[in-house]
Amino acid sequence: MSTDADRPLIRLLPGRDKRVKAGHPWAFSNEIAMTAAAKALPPGSVVRLEGDDGVKHGAWHFNPHSLIAARLLTPDPQAAIDAGWFRARLGACLALRQRLFDAPFYRLVHAEADGLPGLIIDRYGDAIALQANTAGMEAATPLLVEALRALLNPDLIVGRNDAGVRVLEGLPEQVVTLHGEPRRVFAEEGGLRFPVDLTEGQKTGWFHDQREHRARVARLAKDATVLDAFCHTGGFGLQAAAAGASRVTLLDRSALALELAMEAAQAHGLADRVETRRGDAMEELARIEARFDIVIADPPAFAKARKDNPAALRAYGKLARLAAERVARGGFLFIASCSHHVAPGEFADAVLWGVDRAHRRPRILHQGGAGPDHPLHPMLPESAYLKGMLLHLP
Amino acid sequence: MSTDADRPLIRLLPGRDKRVKAGHPWAFSNEIAMTAAAKALPPGSVVRLEGDDGVKHGAWHFNPHSLIAARLLTPDPQAAIDAGWFRARLGACLALRQRLFDAPFYRLVHAEADGLPGLIIDRYGDAIALQANTAGMEAATPLLVEALRALLNPDLIVGRNDAGVRVLEGLPEQVVTLHGEPRRVFAEEGGLRFPVDLTEGQKTGWFHDQREHRARVARLAKDATVLDAFCHTGGFGLQAAAAGASRVTLLDRSALALELAMEAAQAHGLADRVETRRGDAMEELARIEARFDIVIADPPAFAKARKDNPAALRAYGKLARLAAERVARGGFLFIASCSHHVAPGEFADAVLWGVDRAHRRPRILHQGGAGPDHPLHPMLPESAYLKGMLLHLP
Repeated sequence: MSTDADRPLIRLLPGRDKRVKAGHPWAFSNEIAMTAAAKALPPGSVVRLEGDDGVKHGAWHFNPHSLIAARLLTPDPQAAIDAGWFRARLGACLALRQRLFDAPFYRLVHAEADGLPGLIIDRYGDAIALQANTAGMEAATPLLVEALRALLNPDLIVGRNDAGVRVLEGLPEQVVTLHGEPRRVFAEEGGLRFPVDLTEGQKTGWFHDQREHRARVARLAKDATVLDAFCHTGGFGLQAAAAGASRVTLLDRSALALELAMEAAQAHGLADRVETRRGDAMEELARIEARFDIVIADPPAFAKARKDNPAALRAYGKLARLAAERVARGGFLFIASCSHHVAPGEFADAVLWGVDRAHRRPRILHQGGAGPDHPLHPMLPESAYLKGMLLHLP
Repeated sequence: MSTDADRPLIRLLPGRDKRVKAGHPWAFSNEIAMTAAAKALPPGSVVRLEGDDGVKHGAWHFNPHSLIAARLLTPDPQAAIDAGWFRARLGACLALRQRLFDAPFYRLVHAEADGLPGLIIDRYGDAIALQANTAGMEAATPLLVEALRALLNPDLIVGRNDAGVRVLEGLPEQVVTLHGEPRRVFAEEGGLRFPVDLTEGQKTGWFHDQREHRARVARLAKDATVLDAFCHTGGFGLQAAAAGASRVTLLDRSALALELAMEAAQAHGLADRVETRRGDAMEELARIEARFDIVIADPPAFAKARKDNPAALRAYGKLARLAAERVARGGFLFIASCSHHVAPGEFADAVLWGVDRAHRRPRILHQGGAGPDHPLHPMLPESAYLKGMLLHLP
């Protein structure tokens, strides 16, 4: 409904429009004329952004209380930001994923890179998990639900609005059912079907981002013994088992995650080659004496904030050492970090330091990030949060 | 035959052993006591390297005329560097590739990362292409041929010793048949068979390093129109055709490369959907008016030396601009650099600059390097020469 004329006007400060003009999808609070009227706008309002020079920069989500005060929706000042607009944008995201994948299990929306700032949507067939990480997307949620229903007709939409970043936007952390009745959901990947707990599970319940890494590790797994540390619901370990691993040990501290993993193992006839071990993965890695042909170490983020970076790098180094010590001669180590606040080069250095401390001389076989359903915005290289390394340890 | 006692001794200068002690596989000429005896050693000699403190650093290849004067063969001072030693090391390289791949078409040896400094070996079934890029590997070539014959019993071994880097080692550039009779050779990849000219073709005749990128692009190609610029023998374009592309244009300046590509297209029944265009790819990109669903731009190295870096970055930017202008709305651009002297971040910046100049707002779907048969040595991150980017252009 709202179009340019009846949207509140927010103006960039003189000389502070360079990044926006270059195509950056954010305007920071110190780049904006924070008038009393601006400060009084409800968080999540759709505004028109203009430069001090009168140049129109289109429609933006605005939150006067956030450091990232404005986020680009569209450079077109005339666009109506309604359910139809969201449906068109979601439709473009869908068309890309349908070209990338054969089956409807993927990240459908990856925020800024998909032109929907602060919004994450994961798809599990007819079930949808949505994370609105900004006040703008929180306010737009009813339109998003309408657009998703028109586009995909899902039977379940869950709002996994429990990400810590919501605090920066002044939003509560909560899990809500936005459409349909909660039911058991599955992720299909690598020929297997994994039960996903959309309500209690970590993040949106499944990590689509490691799809390619799981396939890469599975291709090495024939007749191998495998230790999957921080296994969550067994994505790496069970795909290795399905690819012919002789024995897979799943290690995690969550009883619920291990239970879901064993449910999948049983459903696929893999349970006789899979065992679980419950405990703190770092402590258990130090305690286990056996060696494995393949060790996977895919922990939750060690650095939740920038200030955690030095401690996180030490922790990644320690994890790499402990994990490398568990790799048999000629075996493989896959290790990953999903910490936004740890850069790829830093992570690689920490891992190589740890492997060196384990007295192993590695070959680096692969370094990579999330799959293509997690695109990057060219102006936000820091959104490349996932870093995976595959090492061969002669 | 030679073991520690009867090998010439080369000594590191006082205080110049830190990198070697940390596991770096090179010692530079200014780290070594260049005595008259050292200078008189034949380039490519196997030497024992010791620190000024008497610590034994094992067996190294030595070339007194090269900036990289010594290259690590093994930290074990007692190892005999004979055909049996090479056979064992090649056997370890083979075991890794056999775990990585189903068919015998891959880079078998990737130099330092595989413990064989300066040596590249590509395998095409029963045919082998070998590049000895150091005086040490030049001198060891008879042992390598003996070891390869014992391990793989190939019917052809070609020495593709025409890499420019040989000049730095004082070696001539030449192509030689080391074993067997020259014959037509094939690379098998993605279900296709590509004829390879081991004698006249570029590098070792085929680029195993782009295997994963070719598969990634082919997965997008169903019903797409495709322009493969700098196509060489059509690896990208023909795999896209086999994956269902509606029309593929192969563009290269080499008549021989295009001839080999069309031979493969005909052999696989793809020729009716494939056309060739001979010319300078950069010039032709500026001349072609059609747009394509997928454009591939995989040029030879623009930076042959470090001093070429600024010009190379400008050229990558221009190439990205011209290629992006040929991509249809909602299409894909794959662009790559194999220049050692262009860092991944620099390349990405140049590409994004060029795409911006084409007035396109890209999503980055993938950034990656060479496949796992091109491992990296942890102390030589600069050996990650290949950089590929897949962009979606809405």
